Formats: sequence, structure tokens, C-alpha cells
Amino acid sequence: MRISELSRRSGAPVTTLKYYLREGLVHEGERRSGNQTDYDESHVQRVRLVRALLDTGGLSIAAARRVLATLDADDRSMADTFEAAQHAMTDGRAHHEASDAARRRVAALAGAQGWRTTPDNPGFDLAARVLDDLAAIGYEPSDAYLDAYAAAADRIARADLAALTDRESPALAAELMVVGTVVGDALIAGLRRLAHQEATAELFPTTGDAHAAPATHATQRKDLP
Amino acid sequence: MRISELSRRSGAPVTTLKYYLREGLVHEGERRSGNQTDYDESHVQRVRLVRALLDTGGLSIAAARRVLATLDADDRSMADTFEAAQHAMTDGRAHHEASDAARRRVAALAGAQGWRTTPDNPGFDLAARVLDDLAAIGYEPSDAYLDAYAAAADRIARADLAALTDRESPALAAELMVVGTVVGDALIAGLRRLAHQEATAELFPTTGDAHAAPATHATQRKDLP
Repeated sequence: MRISELSRRSGAPVTTLKYYLREGLVHEGERRSGNQTDYDESHVQRVRLVRALLDTGGLSIAAARRVLATLDADDRSMADTFEAAQHAMTDGRAHHEASDAARRRVAALAGAQGWRTTPDNPGFDLAARVLDDLAAIGYEPSDAYLDAYAAAADRIARADLAALTDRESPALAAELMVVGTVVGDALIAGLRRLAHQEATAELFPTTGDAHAAPATHATQRKDLP
Repeated sequence: MRISELSRRSGAPVTTLKYYLREGLVHEGERRSGNQTDYDESHVQRVRLVRALLDTGGLSIAAARRVLATLDADDRSMADTFEAAQHAMTDGRAHHEASDAARRRVAALAGAQGWRTTPDNPGFDLAARVLDDLAAIGYEPSDAYLDAYAAAADRIARADLAALTDRESPALAAELMVVGTVVGDALIAGLRRLAHQEATAELFPTTGDAHAAPATHATQRKDLP
């Protein structure tokens, strides 16, 4: 297919496709006679994957390139692919270092859940910096607060891993592992915002008139966002 | 205090402080005679808050400014502040539109959890785009997968709201609501990475030699990340 057809099939504008090709995120098409280049199904799939990583996952071009490289390398193990996906979202993000106290608390939390982790797991720094941020505004999170987060993380992680076993081949499982790791953060962030609205309505009932009843929301087509 | 002392207290370099001041994220200090400007505790607090929003939360300057404006306005209700925080992370992020089918599935998921939501909740689009991304790589999430995410989101949201009631004043509760909404995404993302390592170790036991036993991790000081 031509680039215009690739654009139509993948939903990405032609200028975006040219950008992806120039940045090496999408493999070149086959050059034909004249000025024409041919693309195939593998390009459609790849463009969709790149969009998921960049748009929904919010990855930088450099981070997306690293993640895609592990998917493209035939000799990478599942564990290597997993590690690349784990680091993708946190690499290159400007940030201050987490305090030792916050890291210790996260390590204790992981230990209490029985998680076997390695110190280089980017989750330690990410979670510990949140504790520092909360401390900076004078909030010391209770054990109940952190336990709720840890239990939720445990539940999600099990669902993520169970999903991998549904895939027909190791290559497809690796692809889902990468995309799932990156966009799963957005899924829980989105659902958390929906759940917040319910929890806020309970806590501050004065805003209640703006809320639809749950039953109508799932059934009335024109009420959908 | 002088700007050098504000830098030491807040942990932000002087150039960063000047940038925050210029962008209007931090209020001006009091001009003294000569070339000197005085800062106080309110500046220390504000700089820490700005860093949490920008660094850990990954907000743009524009999004942080909008969120801070709702905190600064005396006449804003808790519900207004909440809405501003809800939208902060999703505003201005370049993305494609979610499909109707994905939105319907998210609406059904929210309905099944009994969440009262409004169609403008940014969580709908955020979560629905993830479903589209997964569909783009040929993965149709099972009900069990989505239910696990929704149940986790429900649990986290309740913990978030319970934390607000610990705060001594409405102003402090509003501050926690904003920071918690923004950095809470990073907290669950970090813990999810730690939980993934455990779940992956169970699924791919060959990588097991790299993992420490849970008990040692929480107790051995030098093993901490």
C-alpha cells in the first residue's frame, strides 16, 4: 500500500508517519520504481504500536526507540524485554532523588507484600519520590493508605501477567508486555479519576446534582461521553 | 530569607527558583532596600508543591499554573479544586480520540462498580484510549482483566479520599487533594513495577537468581535501593 493508505489504516497523518520513519520508529517500506514506496500490514501494526507508546504512554521518542529495539531483537529473553518496558517510562524524566527514609518505607511495603524485587527496579524511586512529595506538603501517609495502594498494585500486576498467558506466541506476549506495562499506567489513572468522582460525591454531597445515576450511564447511548 | 537560603531549604537550584518566579508558579518575595528580596516559609512550601507537580506528576507549566490557581482562589469550592486536579494531567496532552466502542466499555465498567460519573470526566477518554491501544495490537482485554483494574481503582480512590479527612483545615485538604491526585498516579505506577517483578518471577522462574528474598529486602539496610 502507499503511504496515504497506511495513514488511513493506522489513523496517523502522513506527516506523522514521515516523522516516525525519519526517527527510525517504523521500518522503511519497499522502494518501487519511480518515487513510490510500498508498505504492508507490518507497517500498520507498527504505527499503531508506536502511537500507543507515544500518545497514551507518554514516552519520549528515545524511550520508545529503546523499547521497540528489545521487541525487534530476536535474541532478547522475555525478562530482558520486561526490564526495558519497566524502565521506559521513568528513564530520562528530570527529577530529584528520593530520600533514604522514603526508599526504606517503600522497601518495607514491598517486603510486606512478599514481592521479590531488585534494588534497580525503577518502581522504588518512583514510589519513594511520591512519599517525599507528600511529606513536603506536610502529609505523612498512613499505613492504611499505603497498604491500599500496594494491594491494588498487587492485584493489577497479577491481572497483567495473567493476560500474557492468553497470547498465542512469545512474540505477541512480549508485545503485550511492553504495551501493557506502558499504557496500563494510563488505564489505572483513568479509572482512578472515575472512582474519585464517586468517592468525592460521597464525601461532598453538595456536588451531587451534577452526577448521573450509575444505571443510566451504562445503558443510555446518548449519555455516553 | 534570601534566595540562596530558599534554594537550600526547598532543594531547588537558584536558576530553577528564578524560572518558577518568572513563570508565576511561585509568588514574588518582598523587595528590600538595595537589590535584595526576602522570602519566607510560604515560599518554601510553594516551591516544594511546584516541584511535586512538575517533577513527579509530570505536569506542564501551563497545567501546574491552572492547578495552583484553583488552590490560590479563596472562593473556589472543594469540588472546583478537585475538578481542576482531575483535568491537570490529561489537559494539553497530544492524543487521538478514543473509539465509541471503547468508551462504552469503560462506561459499563464504571457502571458495574456503581460509580456516579459525569461524561466530562477525563478518566473516560484516558481509559478508553488504552483499550483502543490494546485492540490495535490485537489484544481484547478480558472482563477479569478490566474488573481487576476497576476494583484496584476503587480501592485506591477510597484511600485517597479517606486521607483528606486527616487534614486539619480545608486549605490543607485541598492541597492534598491536588497533590494526591497528580502524584498518586506515580505512586501506583511505581508499586505496580515492583509487583510486576514478583509476578514475572513467578511466571518466568529462570530469572529468579537475580531476585532477593522478600524478608531480607525490608530488613538489610545495605541492600536498599
